[in-house]
This record gives sequence, C-alpha cells and structure tokens, in this order.
Amino acid sequence: MTLKRKEAYQVAIMGATGAVGQEIMAVLEERKFPVERLHLFASERSAGSTYTVFGKETIVQRLSEGVFSGIDLVLGATDSALSKKFTPLAVKAGCVVIDNSSAFRMDSSVPLVVPEVNGHTVGLHNGIIANPNCSTAQLVVALKPLHDVAKLRRVVVTTFQSVSGTGKEAMDELLEQTKAVLSFKEVKCHVYAQQIAFNCIVNWECNLQTGYTDEEMKIINETRKIMGDSTIQMTATTIRVPVFRSHGESVNIETERKLVVSEARAILSNAPGIVVFDDPARNLYPTPLDAVGQDNVYVGRIREDLSVKNGLNLWLVADNLRKGAALNAVQIAEALIQ
Amino acid sequence: MTLKRKEAYQVAIMGATGAVGQEIMAVLEERKFPVERLHLFASERSAGSTYTVFGKETIVQRLSEGVFSGIDLVLGATDSALSKKFTPLAVKAGCVVIDNSSAFRMDSSVPLVVPEVNGHTVGLHNGIIANPNCSTAQLVVALKPLHDVAKLRRVVVTTFQSVSGTGKEAMDELLEQTKAVLSFKEVKCHVYAQQIAFNCIVNWECNLQTGYTDEEMKIINETRKIMGDSTIQMTATTIRVPVFRSHGESVNIETERKLVVSEARAILSNAPGIVVFDDPARNLYPTPLDAVGQDNVYVGRIREDLSVKNGLNLWLVADNLRKGAALNAVQIAEALIQ
Repeated sequence: MTLKRKEAYQVAIMGATGAVGQEIMAVLEERKFPVERLHLFASERSAGSTYTVFGKETIVQRLSEGVFSGIDLVLGATDSALSKKFTPLAVKAGCVVIDNSSAFRMDSSVPLVVPEVNGHTVGLHNGIIANPNCSTAQLVVALKPLHDVAKLRRVVVTTFQSVSGTGKEAMDELLEQTKAVLSFKEVKCHVYAQQIAFNCIVNWECNLQTGYTDEEMKIINETRKIMGDSTIQMTATTIRVPVFRSHGESVNIETERKLVVSEARAILSNAPGIVVFDDPARNLYPTPLDAVGQDNVYVGRIREDLSVKNGLNLWLVADNLRKGAALNAVQIAEALIQ
Repeated sequence: MTLKRKEAYQVAIMGATGAVGQEIMAVLEERKFPVERLHLFASERSAGSTYTVFGKETIVQRLSEGVFSGIDLVLGATDSALSKKFTPLAVKAGCVVIDNSSAFRMDSSVPLVVPEVNGHTVGLHNGIIANPNCSTAQLVVALKPLHDVAKLRRVVVTTFQSVSGTGKEAMDELLEQTKAVLSFKEVKCHVYAQQIAFNCIVNWECNLQTGYTDEEMKIINETRKIMGDSTIQMTATTIRVPVFRSHGESVNIETERKLVVSEARAILSNAPGIVVFDDPARNLYPTPLDAVGQDNVYVGRIREDLSVKNGLNLWLVADNLRKGAALNAVQIAEALIQ
C-alpha cells in the first residue's frame, strides 16, 4: 500500500468545497504539487459547481463509493463521520488517504504526522495518514524543538480559536451576527449555541465525566502521539473567539532542564516552520491577523515563568487553515512522494 | 482620617465621564448609596456637560485643586497620572479617596481591597483605599474561597480582556474598525497599535527585561497583596479580545490539599460574589455576554487537571466595569460607612 513514484499524480480532494478543501486546492497550486489531474469530491449539495484548478475547469463530483478508482492520493477534508465512511473505501480502491478529520488520528496503525516533528513516520502508513487537529499542529511545531533540548515535563495551554476552525458556515455566522449587533437587530444562532460576535464561547462537545471538551482532549492526546512521548503532562482549555482566521495559544511549559529566554529564542529561531516574532522593545509579537495566509507558526512573548523551577511562557499564532489543516496535509503529501 | 458617620455623604466622582466613571454613577444610584450630593469632576474637555443623577441635574466641573473642599468621599476613575496628582490633594482637603487607578495599589500604607476577600482591611486606610485591576478583582473573588480550604500553591492565568477595560475610546475603536472591515474600508488604529477588530492583541506596556506586561505584573502582585499571601506562585498572560465588555480568564491552579471537582464546586457555590455556572450536560458555562451588567463573578468549566498532583482548571467571567471597577469601588465605600 505504498504510493508508486510518478511524474504526476491523480489527486482528489474529498470535501473540496469546505473551508479546508478550498485551502488545500490553493496550497496544491501554490506549491506546484505534481498533479496530473485534480478531482473534486463533495456532498450532493455542492456537486456540479466548477472550479478552475491547475488551469483546468473542474466539476465537483458527488462523493460516492465509486469515485476513487484510478486515484493515487486523496486529501480528506470532510467531517469525521464522512471520513469514517469513505476513507476505507478509498483505501480499498488503492488510494493513499491523508485525512484531516479526527476519525483515524488515534488509531495505532495510522501515523499522525506534522512533517517538522515526525515526518519520518509518513512511510509507516497502511493507506491512511492522519493530519492533526489545527490547535495541535501549531503547538507541536513549537514544542518539539524545545522538547528535544530540554525535555518537556508539563504543558498548560489555553487556546484563542478562530471560527474558520468550525468551517465556512461559522465564518458566515460571525459576519451575520456582527452585522446584526451593529444594526441593533436580533442576533441569530445556528452554527453555535451561543452568540460568537463580540463574545468568547466553548462550542465543543464536553465529556460529562471529566468536563473536558473533545478539542481539549485532542490537543493532549495528539500532542503526545506526534511527539512520541506519552510522559508529557498536559492540560488544555479551548475557547472560541470572534476572529475569522488563525488561532492563538497561550502556552506555559515546564522543562526538565532549565531554558533561559535567550536560549529558547535561539532554539525556536533555528527550528523548521517557526518564525520568532518577539521583541518587546518594538512591541513585536504575533497577532492572528499577522498569520493569515502564512505558512509558519509565529512565536512571541517568550518569558521565563518564575512561578516554577524551569518554566517558560509562549504565545503562538498560526493560520488554522494552513499549518493547522491544508498546508500540513500537502506537506505530508510532499513527504510521501519524496 | 476616618470618614465621619452621616445620614448621607458629599460624594464625588473624579473622572466622571469615562467608562468607569459612568458605571460608578449608575452603581451608586442602583445600590441607593446615601448620597447627599454627587459631584462630578472631569477634564476640561468634558466640563460643562450635565447628567441627571440622584434626581438632580448635575454639571460636570473641571477637575482642579480647589474642588475637594467639603467632600467626604471621592471615587477616583481617572488614569494613574491624574490620580497621582489629585488624590493627595483630595486627601489633604479631608476626603477619603477610593481610587480605581494603579497609582497607589502597591503602596504598603494603602489597603487594596476586594470586599469579599479582605474587606476587613478597609479601616486601615490613611485617606486612600485602592481598587484593584479589573482582571485581579474577579480572579481573587474566585481564588480566595479555594485558598482558604486548600491553600493555593501556584496559579497560571490567561486573560481574555474586553476593550472597555481600556476605556470608551477603545470601545469606539472596536466599533469603527468592525464597521470598516465589514465595508472593506481601511482600518484605522488610534487607541491600540494593532487592529483589535476580529483579532487578539497585547496592548500593554512590556517590561523589557522580563517581557511581562504591566497588566500581567498587576495581576500577580495585586493578587498576592489582596490575598495577604506572598507565597502564592503565579504567572499570567494577558490578551485583549474583540469583546466590548466583560473579561474571561482561563485559570489553572495547584493546591496544597487535593480538591475534587464536586468539592471545589460546593466551595465556590457557597462563597460570596460568585455564581457557579457549570453544567456540561446542559452546555452551561459563562460567556462574557452573560456577565454584562451583572455583579457576580461567574465560574464554570471546573475540571480536575490530571497533569499535576492537585490541579484544577477554571473559567471565570465577570463584568470588568462592575466587579472589575465601579461595583467593587462602591462596595468598598459601603464597607467604609458601615
């Protein structure tokens, strides 16, 4: 079940019309991925619409059992339920699937990959490679180089997540609610149970025993799997903020070995996929807007935490649709064909 | 320098036309504070405007050295520089000043008071009582009852602060920037250096040595002073979010004695000034919008943090203009005249 080396590949995007699917389309073109033909699959609702990709007018086909024949590589951008249904069918048809959903991430036979961190595991797949949760992806890019030098003991993370993580409809909802507030009209909630405009909410499923959201547990479990170290102690709080795109993360870490700020800054500056954007004297730190459309994880506000022996605080920002989803998926595809 | 007991007091608001000054006006009326006459002081720019307060049309007077004569109680809602200039003049004129600015908070001769936590220190004043930073006020209300039972070892807090904490102009800026984004016009930054609409920023002064903002250091230092315990280890990350009113806080604590979730919930439910709003089964947790105009600190998402021996995560929300400023100031005034 390996991908045969070719000059160019038959590539499909499953869930092509959603926020992540659209971004995958753009990233494949931008990075000149060797595509022989790009196939676009989506739900019945979106089937029939057309996009110009790789210079060709391409009609969106309805996602169904028969569509995978002859395709080499599927980039999955559907929800978890659809992925559970269609990913095995694609694999059966001989495709390799890079799946953005959470369906297979914690499956021990499925590599969960962030190329900067564990790119070497790409080859271990049995037809499926999983792309992590958006909040996890940007977190591990920043944590890994620090872990390699100083070994992480504990991580406390609080997220500031944009609505595009939920999808296009959530972006529309933020827009519509904002307009309603500005014109003193009634605010309507469809995607989220609470108003997101000018508010902060928690829109994930909660485990009724522990109180943790599934998003929080994904961050904890996926980080350990990608870093290949289940001893890292972690806790997380996930919050949705009225931002369209890019997630912020307030990250507090404890390490086995002491890292002073200058050393942490140097380590992060030399690590792949990271831009250190951190100069208090020039009021330089990354905001979500700075990261929109960017590929790197931006790290700023690196501070020694004096409340614990070897503590550091960091503020991370990345485009959740790029490094958090589409870019990472395409980077996995690139690693796969190398 | 004690306040003489009276049936009703000559009360002044210094900085009456700002966001906090306006809220103090409303809270004094709402709580029927025994006001004989309410004097309104503000900068030259606002002098001459009129408000109907306690049933009387009241003209805003220009804040100057001579205005304090005959006044019993001054509620200060100016910035720190103005407070440093005028608070000593008011004290010299025989007033007791409850000051909202940071000017005197860490002065060892000035009580820094949150009535639910250290109301007993109100009487120790020498003419000045300080009101804490908005983020600190809501934090200590929630921490104190847990500290009393289980002794806090360490607190890691990340804030989601609304723009009203900066003042009226910042609320206008969020509004104007939001309109500009929605109509594809250029976004202009006056109050904040970065765009706040649909973004998250850090708008406080940074200490160039440590990298911490003054807001972060206020939270740490003021919490220790109000709780009367300098052994509490603390670190903070302060972030400004595009919300008009109410601050959210993601709080991770470690305690000496283990607190299970049910016990923490019971302790908080029975503590003054707190509403526990925490039922994952009903998707119940507090959002900033829920707290607008409310007096209590709302606590939700109480979860055991398994990454450390005795850990808990909390999510706090309170109206930064009420408990974080005006309400707390008036509560101090009430304690003072009791």
